[in-house]
Amino acid sequence: MPEAIQPIQWKRTSLHLLDQRKLPREEVYVDCATAEDVADAIRTMVVRGAPAIGVTAAFGMAIGARAFAERQPRAERRAVDAEVSRLKDFFAATRPTAVNLFWALERVEGIARKAPGDASAVATLLEETAKSLYDEDIAVNRAIGDHGAPLIPAEAGILTHCNTGSLATAGFGTALGVIRAARAAGKNVHVFADETRPFLQGARLTAWECVKERIPVTLLCDGAAASIMKRGKIQVAIVGADRVAANGDTANKIGTYSVALAAKAHGIPFYVAAPISTIDLSTPNGDAIPIEQRDPREVTHLAGHAVAPEGVTVENPSFDVTPSDLITAIITERGVARAPYVDSLRRLVGAR
Amino acid sequence: MPEAIQPIQWKRTSLHLLDQRKLPREEVYVDCATAEDVADAIRTMVVRGAPAIGVTAAFGMAIGARAFAERQPRAERRAVDAEVSRLKDFFAATRPTAVNLFWALERVEGIARKAPGDASAVATLLEETAKSLYDEDIAVNRAIGDHGAPLIPAEAGILTHCNTGSLATAGFGTALGVIRAARAAGKNVHVFADETRPFLQGARLTAWECVKERIPVTLLCDGAAASIMKRGKIQVAIVGADRVAANGDTANKIGTYSVALAAKAHGIPFYVAAPISTIDLSTPNGDAIPIEQRDPREVTHLAGHAVAPEGVTVENPSFDVTPSDLITAIITERGVARAPYVDSLRRLVGAR
Repeated sequence: MPEAIQPIQWKRTSLHLLDQRKLPREEVYVDCATAEDVADAIRTMVVRGAPAIGVTAAFGMAIGARAFAERQPRAERRAVDAEVSRLKDFFAATRPTAVNLFWALERVEGIARKAPGDASAVATLLEETAKSLYDEDIAVNRAIGDHGAPLIPAEAGILTHCNTGSLATAGFGTALGVIRAARAAGKNVHVFADETRPFLQGARLTAWECVKERIPVTLLCDGAAASIMKRGKIQVAIVGADRVAANGDTANKIGTYSVALAAKAHGIPFYVAAPISTIDLSTPNGDAIPIEQRDPREVTHLAGHAVAPEGVTVENPSFDVTPSDLITAIITERGVARAPYVDSLRRLVGAR
Repeated sequence: MPEAIQPIQWKRTSLHLLDQRKLPREEVYVDCATAEDVADAIRTMVVRGAPAIGVTAAFGMAIGARAFAERQPRAERRAVDAEVSRLKDFFAATRPTAVNLFWALERVEGIARKAPGDASAVATLLEETAKSLYDEDIAVNRAIGDHGAPLIPAEAGILTHCNTGSLATAGFGTALGVIRAARAAGKNVHVFADETRPFLQGARLTAWECVKERIPVTLLCDGAAASIMKRGKIQVAIVGADRVAANGDTANKIGTYSVALAAKAHGIPFYVAAPISTIDLSTPNGDAIPIEQRDPREVTHLAGHAVAPEGVTVENPSFDVTPSDLITAIITERGVARAPYVDSLRRLVGAR
């Protein structure tokens, strides 16, 4: 079944990306015909969400490799490999926190290095690899949904933060994928979507996906989540992840840590749903995860209007780290990890 | 010393209110010449903040009483009293949560009832009463500052939520007043202002007041507060209140409860600064405090632009309740209350 929402569309020579900055008002696609276009789209958040960024960057490498093959069809293989490495580094510099990006880039580079052939053959291989990553991401998300659905009660108010749906992935979604799978399993769920300042992924994207697919949804300001938990409306909190450290500490969209603290205070299970590619065993704990600081204007301006005084200092971390002791379980495509995460995550990552 | 920021200005026949919806872009005043104008200004949040609303409504009653005296200069005293009661009920219906509003209205009505004289004399008395309430509020806030300043360390990052400054009061402020007093006492403080969605009182008002008075300030999204506490930047959290119940449970701007939970998790003292008029001994606990739900458009639209899909359901509670066990102390003009609040608050309210 094709996905209802397809934010990443491969058009043989270019990549069409649904411009998520313009949702929900406009559904327009940005046509990325060069590697630079793709990198810009990642940096400026035309596309966002850890799995979606990984897949997008893989297509960006394919576009870059094809351009190189057209410029230098007879290039020596050493030069081809150097170009692939350059492209990898170029995309790796777009955003620092989500590890899926680096995972996808390294996978693409590894496949290119091992394969025989000239620049054109390598470009074709990268295109095939990107397409595989795309298909694989959807399959992975469906498996996450299958593992996560049993954790959702038959009737549940589910709080989520940011967007973890079709728009954050190649399709189906991670945390929102678990919600979709729970619905498919006949559960009666109601999504409570944090609006997720400053970029409003909850209001603009999660609420939009839910309305589009007729999933019952209530939108709220981030600061209202704790009081809505206190009123008994939430039975489960579930979020995605941009990087899970070896000990289970999880970097995710700014505000996630507050949700986890409030869930803990109200005895509500707090789940992280993420593909294995988000787990970074080489990062020992949350303190070692680099946190991107974004433009103060995301906070000081709304729709081009200043909402803060000129020249005010701003802290705008794009992510925070939720310590693993606040996380009830981490749901992956290979199963559900629980504390102690050092063991359970290593086991899942090692499994095939 | 006159206050630098005067959001409420009495002009003998009308009330000029700084239009806080237009800050920080424009400093314009709304001229309220009738009781209806004043009530509209409260409802639409031209003026907001519990103490400011109380003082504003008192001036609104004075304007209404003067209009009545001009329409019916020979009215019987019974009719005058009936009009005063009608005005009281009219203003009491503007907003439901902040108890200072009801406190101010009852005080004005009580004074009117006891005084001799005709409609004109009563109108003059109400004007004098409103002016006294205004002056008293500034004095009360300065006393809150005096009691609160010793609780602030010599060097402190101070997290605050919403606006509790000159704009929320007749002048000086409650929680921001404590910060002002700490600075006046030579302490080196840095304010971290939650932007405070949906109405952005932190971004638009607190940051504006701080920049205007050169108080060092950093603006952040509400969801970033917990992670900034985790990074060790915050030594104190301090907020205002819209109603404090007899047991110390405190209703304040939505998002306050999240701040209190995060402060608790990081061992950071969490203070409430509020005048005695905010303490409502007739409300036993937080569950008995009515919580205003405001227009979904405050969440779904920014500067007139839709940021959420058409027709999405919204929860937009204007306030939440922080349970007293998360509150380190409540700072009033008569001293600092600590747990058990049932005793300490009753003592302070009873003291003269």
